[in-house]
Amino acid sequence: MKPIEEYVVSIPDFPEQGVIFRDVTSVLQDAEGLHLAIDLMQEKLEGLDFDVVVGPESRGFIFGVPIAYNLRKPFVPVRKKGKLPRETVSIEYELEYGTASIEMHRDSIKPGQRVVIVDDLIATGGTTEAIIKLVEGMGGEVSKVIFLMELAGLKGRQRLKDYDLDSVITYPGN
Amino acid sequence: MKPIEEYVVSIPDFPEQGVIFRDVTSVLQDAEGLHLAIDLMQEKLEGLDFDVVVGPESRGFIFGVPIAYNLRKPFVPVRKKGKLPRETVSIEYELEYGTASIEMHRDSIKPGQRVVIVDDLIATGGTTEAIIKLVEGMGGEVSKVIFLMELAGLKGRQRLKDYDLDSVITYPGN
Repeated sequence: MKPIEEYVVSIPDFPEQGVIFRDVTSVLQDAEGLHLAIDLMQEKLEGLDFDVVVGPESRGFIFGVPIAYNLRKPFVPVRKKGKLPRETVSIEYELEYGTASIEMHRDSIKPGQRVVIVDDLIATGGTTEAIIKLVEGMGGEVSKVIFLMELAGLKGRQRLKDYDLDSVITYPGN
Repeated sequence: MKPIEEYVVSIPDFPEQGVIFRDVTSVLQDAEGLHLAIDLMQEKLEGLDFDVVVGPESRGFIFGVPIAYNLRKPFVPVRKKGKLPRETVSIEYELEYGTASIEMHRDSIKPGQRVVIVDDLIATGGTTEAIIKLVEGMGGEVSKVIFLMELAGLKGRQRLKDYDLDSVITYPGN
């Protein structure tokens, strides 16, 4: 079986000059790649006792829902502002240029629940840090944060050093 | 076990006056609801021979990926314009107000491949019709189109009458 790294297509200079884009769609559009990616992420949760999977729109949905299904947990989506229909909690955070706002339903995490956050990729860790604040603001406890890919050069791991963070593939650069 | 309908929270007047919003997040945030929704959608595919699951951003990802995982098929995402990094095919289609553009990677469907399109909800069927055009434009064959929820009053089924369409929950209105 091919190692997971070989399913990822790397695209130089997308979306801008100097950035190497790690394309997760090339993993998904291969049945074996998709299966392997989800299985390897799920292995990171072996032996962990937790209550809820949380994943951000839209690539966090791709990996978060199958893991929630397989482990028979609820899945709680994090969405961009204005898309969730019930009462929400929201947070604004800084991007490289400008800011972004994300939100979760106010009733989606109950105090004391142990949460696993799932996304496709960690870069600077800004989005994940914002999600952690939302979860903790509702009284949840972040048990673990997992990614398919980590861009180690952008130091997301240092930013989230107080949390148990794991990734399947680590790229040294950005 | 509760029937799947009881996991859906209906929200009157969202996102605008007179619309009843059928909230899929209330299904997902219950472990049993999530499991049941995916299992019931997947039952609609029993005995069907096909090659690829296609799902649109972002709620099509929620149901499409677990089904692809369970049936060991590839998953091909349909995204809003500008988000896919490799060469794409795109289509513009009409919404109630204005237009939308969606795209798929040009190499994501091979001629002759049998495609199942998965989404959370069918309303007028405009998005699904646009996806069908993209798939057929690449030489794919649409074997089936499945939804968790169908708003029958908006007549998506009539619009897509040449296709095999199925949904788990049917609401008579809009």
